[in-house]
Formats: sequence, structure tokens, C-alpha cells
Amino acid sequence: MRIAGTNHRSIWLDDESNTLQIIDQTLLPHEFAIRPLADLAACAEAIRTMRVRGAPLIGATAAHGLALALAVDPGDAALDRAAATLLATRPTAINLRWAIERVTRVVAESPLISRAARAREEAIRICDDDVAACESIGEHGLALLRGIAGQRIATGNPISRAAPLQLLTHCNAGWLATVDWGTALAPIYKAHDAGIPLHVWVDETRPRNQGSSLTAFELREMGIPHTVIVDNAGGHLMQRGQVDAVLVGSDRTTATGDVCNKIGTYLKALAAHDNDVPFYVALPLSTIDWRLSDGLAEIPIEERDEKEVREIWGLSAADRIERVELFSSESPAKNPAFDVTPARFVTSLVTERGVCEASRDGLASLRDQAPPTP
Amino acid sequence: MRIAGTNHRSIWLDDESNTLQIIDQTLLPHEFAIRPLADLAACAEAIRTMRVRGAPLIGATAAHGLALALAVDPGDAALDRAAATLLATRPTAINLRWAIERVTRVVAESPLISRAARAREEAIRICDDDVAACESIGEHGLALLRGIAGQRIATGNPISRAAPLQLLTHCNAGWLATVDWGTALAPIYKAHDAGIPLHVWVDETRPRNQGSSLTAFELREMGIPHTVIVDNAGGHLMQRGQVDAVLVGSDRTTATGDVCNKIGTYLKALAAHDNDVPFYVALPLSTIDWRLSDGLAEIPIEERDEKEVREIWGLSAADRIERVELFSSESPAKNPAFDVTPARFVTSLVTERGVCEASRDGLASLRDQAPPTP
Repeated sequence: MRIAGTNHRSIWLDDESNTLQIIDQTLLPHEFAIRPLADLAACAEAIRTMRVRGAPLIGATAAHGLALALAVDPGDAALDRAAATLLATRPTAINLRWAIERVTRVVAESPLISRAARAREEAIRICDDDVAACESIGEHGLALLRGIAGQRIATGNPISRAAPLQLLTHCNAGWLATVDWGTALAPIYKAHDAGIPLHVWVDETRPRNQGSSLTAFELREMGIPHTVIVDNAGGHLMQRGQVDAVLVGSDRTTATGDVCNKIGTYLKALAAHDNDVPFYVALPLSTIDWRLSDGLAEIPIEERDEKEVREIWGLSAADRIERVELFSSESPAKNPAFDVTPARFVTSLVTERGVCEASRDGLASLRDQAPPTP
Repeated sequence: MRIAGTNHRSIWLDDESNTLQIIDQTLLPHEFAIRPLADLAACAEAIRTMRVRGAPLIGATAAHGLALALAVDPGDAALDRAAATLLATRPTAINLRWAIERVTRVVAESPLISRAARAREEAIRICDDDVAACESIGEHGLALLRGIAGQRIATGNPISRAAPLQLLTHCNAGWLATVDWGTALAPIYKAHDAGIPLHVWVDETRPRNQGSSLTAFELREMGIPHTVIVDNAGGHLMQRGQVDAVLVGSDRTTATGDVCNKIGTYLKALAAHDNDVPFYVALPLSTIDWRLSDGLAEIPIEERDEKEVREIWGLSAADRIERVELFSSESPAKNPAFDVTPARFVTSLVTERGVCEASRDGLASLRDQAPPTP
């Protein structure tokens, strides 16, 4: 994807220095800073503090972190310690464990001397696979969006024919949340490239504001019309017929189609359901936890520091990135980072292997198309 | 209600100076500042910029504004101009029109020379009536809360018997939104005074943060346990059984029980419905627009400046109230201030005349208890 016209991935190995690099997402949209990740500790810190975030990108970063750890010590004990360090960074997104297990499986078969190189190759492969998966999600999602645009044209209403497709998204499930393309935003990028007129309502996504900070930034750089709204506003827009479809990502999806995603996703799913607006969840199969069948009971919900609710970062009048406190420290805050949207509120899941119903049968039909993913 | 142990109303006539005074709510919770309103223009500005807000307090301020205008010019033309100025400040809350009509009716029968004094008397009466209505709302709501606490005790579960009643509120419908007591918070204050253990989840309420700035401030000053959450979190808490009831206010209610309230209220009503959590709306009868039967079609929704979404005020590290910009001005924002919760999602309406179903029959039963309010 492009920033100021230049193509970027969200994580990459620098050609010259051969070091791992990321875009520090905690500084966006105010500052675009590239940051090297030199070792395991830097990778773990970047995941924990959300310099990198989004389930697929967390997985990719963890894979590279493991490779960096093995370059220091390729032994089994060091491998286990590195895996444990990375797994402890964030509990909800399943891609973290998926990527660690994928790298671990590969290096377990390798002699010690080649482990670091094999891990690095596998990390690169994970990144490339993610790009391909997300582009494929984009193509499958594009077909859905074409369908909605087609329904509008079929109505013959000249106003609705000319009006752009109105999409709503929560949090950031764009290329910054993956390695490239994104999940929920991939169909939007594909539709934009295909010349389908569209406009995106961008949920601010408190408390970390990934919508107004990251999604709005991405869409702006790609020249896609969009409008930032507070998280409270989406239901109202759906009631007024101003949303044709909701697209979101997922941090973990059960084998039965329950979707764990950024806190507040569930509220948008309820509103979509109440207003007959299609609610699509886009995800690579690596985001599915095939062991789970009940999202509400089984997915651990990360509780983050209450400071993320109390404090906020922005650009001051002096053009500096500054922190302000929104309310008194005498009032406590609680900060659950994710919620679970039961499958019954999800219209379809959009994966790299196609679109399916959010159900055990729907997901199994995709899983069985090729060797099982996990 | 109390601030630092001292009793306050949100609007009052100062005994010594005989001037109208308010608490400037745009500075809370960081600074407690009292501000005089010397004339009509000051009253209109205070309403428009939300130094005073909340449907009942807007009505009370408008009534006093009319009295101040008549003190300058008691003629019919001046009266009409003053009413028009006040009506134009904010379109959604019906109490504004209700209060203006109540004062206008009284002064229309008075000779010019006594109009200002009569208007002032009526404004004082509107304030006193609001205090009485809100206290009565508190008593009726207390009975509901006792009922919920009683159900818990009836279950015999020792954990749920000892645990505090978990309430969730959106925006500020406390004493700062009225003249005293509040609407949604009045039952909470009454329950606290009655010794019922309770804890309040306070929705931040973006974009103006009336929850974290005003409701948390009120509850803290009253010594009531509470926790601030982002607007996205309420559904998740309800799914986990951590909310026993939702209480909110209303800016305008139709004769059929549709409730127009702060943007985002609808999303909480959907979540309450999906999780069998009672959803109560507390309001004085002055907030009912008896002419309307379809909230979604008929209530005008105020669109406020997009800057309220883009910019935020907080306390800087240097302990100054500062504004920071959250995202680029190249990304537009949209800022609808209210949404409509259809009556079918409202468990009960709590008014000064008692609790009723959110329906035409329910409201008519209360209206007919005494001479019609409008």
C-alpha cells in the first residue's frame, strides 16, 4: 500500500542493513516513523505497546522475533523461552500462537546451526502468505460489494444508483493491521481500484483510536473518501439508511463463527442486525481457533491499562505530540480490549478461500478445501 | 447536590448580587468555575456552547434568558425575538420550547411593566418544579432498583446477595443536566442514600465526554463507587452479566415512547435488549413532545461542529487545560449529537408521576393523572 505515493509493507527486512523494520503505529497519524526491531525483546515490546498491532501483523512480528532469538541461541530451551515471551505479550489474538507454532514446527526439524536461517525464511514466508491471503480476501470481498452495488442499480432509483456505496468499519483492519492490503479494508481497496464509488464511515475506536489514527490515515493516503465518526454514531447512521454494509476484522474466530474483535464491534453488529445491514467479518484462516466452539465462554479478553482510557495523545497547538488527561485519577477506569460478536449476528465471513456462513458447517467447508491450516 | 461538601444547584440567582449564575460545565472536571449570565445573549451563548446542557437545564436557562430579555425590553416584538434566539440555540431537546412557551404564556397576560418580574418568577418556578420532579423521579426509580436488588436476594446466591447493584449510564443525566438531583442519576442518589450498595459504569460519551467529565465528577463528589469505560465497552459488560440495569435520560420523548437521547444511547439499548438487562429512561414530563408519534421520522437531530470529534480538551503535564488534535484535518468528521431509541427497546419510562410502559397507553395513563403538562 502507499504512503505519500510510496509502496510500503507494515513490516519488512531492509535490503541494505538487513534489519527488521516496522512503522511505529503509536505515532500515527501525527508522525511517520520507521523503527528497527533488533532482537526478541524489541519485538515483544513492539507488540505489547502496540507499535505493531492487528492479529496478522502481531503474528508476523512474533515469527520474526523468534528468528531473531534463535540467531542468538538456537537451542530448544531458548526457543521455548522466546516463544513464551512472545505469547505473553497479548492474550487475545490467536495469530500470535499460530505463527509461533508454525515457526517452531519448522525449526524443530532443523539442525541447530541452520535454525535461525530457517526461522527467518519461515517468517518471510508467513509475511508473504499473509499478503497473498489478504489480497485474496480483497477479491472475495469485492464480489460481495459488487453484489450490493448491483442490488442498488437493480432498484432503478437514479439517486441510489449514483450515490457511493456507504461502508462502515471499526478499528483498523487495514494494511497496517496485516503485512499488506488488510482484511476488512482489502475489499474496499479492491473496490476503489475497480472504480466502484464508495465512502467509508470510520469509527474512532476508543480508547486507542485506531480508526481515526490509522484507518483514516490509510484511506486518506489511498485517496478514498471517508468520514470519521465517534463510536456512538454508527447505529444512528444505520437507522437512517446511511450504511450499506459493515466490514470489520477479527482477532480470533471460533470454529463455530463467533468473532472476537476490537471492543465495540458487538454493538455495531447489533445495530446492523436491527437495521438489516449486512455485517461482514474479513479474516485470514490463521485467525481461526479451530479448538473453540463458544467465543463468549472460551476466548480470553485482554484487559489493558486503564491509563489508555484516562489519557489521550494528540497534536498540541505548538505542533507537538502531547498527552492530556481526560478525567481525574480519583475515578477508576476499566479497559477491556475486545468483545465477542456471536455468530448469529455475522452475515458472512470473508476469507482467502472464499465467503462462508459464520457457522461450523460454513467454516468446515472452507477448511476442507485444502490441508488443514492449524 | 454536593461539590466538596457544599450544596449546589446547576443554575441559581445569587442572593447578594441578584445575578443569574451557572457552573461552567465546559471546564469540568478540571476546573470548577461559576459564571454569571447577565443577559439574553449570555444565556444563548451558554446553551449553544454547552456551558449548560441537559434538556431540563437548557429549559431552565432559557426561561431565565427570556426574563433577562424582558427586563431590557418587555414589548411583544422583543419577546418574540428573544424566544427565537433561544429556540435557535439547540434543536433537539424539547424542554427549550416547553420552557419558552410556559414563560411566554404567563407574560402574555401581564402588563408590560410587570412582565420582567413575572417572567423571572416563572423561571424560578420552573427551576423549583424541576427539582421537585427530579426528586420524585428519584423516588420512583429507587423502587425499581429495590426491586432488582430484591430479585437478587430472592435467588439466594450468597455472592450475588453481597455484590453491589451494577448500573450503567450514558452521558450525564445527573444534577448537572437538570437543576438538582438529575433524571437517570436521581434513583442512584436515592439508592445510595438508602444504603443499597451499588456501582456505576460510566460511559465516557464521546465526543463531548459528558460521562467521564461530568457524571464521574458528580459520582465522585457524592462518594458513589463508579468506573469510567469507553462507549464501546458496555455491550461486553452486559454479555458478561456485569450490568443489572441501564439508566439514561432523554432529550425528547414522543407520545409513543420513542426516546431521543445522547448519540450512542441506541447502541446500549440494543445490547441491553440482547442480554435481558432492563433499560430504564428517566425523564420529567416536560421532556415529552406530545405532538410526535415517530421518533425516527420526526425528531430533528442536531449536527454539531466536526471539531468536537477532531479536537479534545484535557489536563496537560503542565497542569493546564489544553486542546489537542486527534487526527488530520484532511480527514472530515461528522458529529450527530443524538440518536433515537425505539420504544420497543425501552423497559420502562421513569417520570415524576411514576413508572410507565414506553407506549402511547403507558404515557397517556400518566398524562391523565393531572392537567396536561404542555
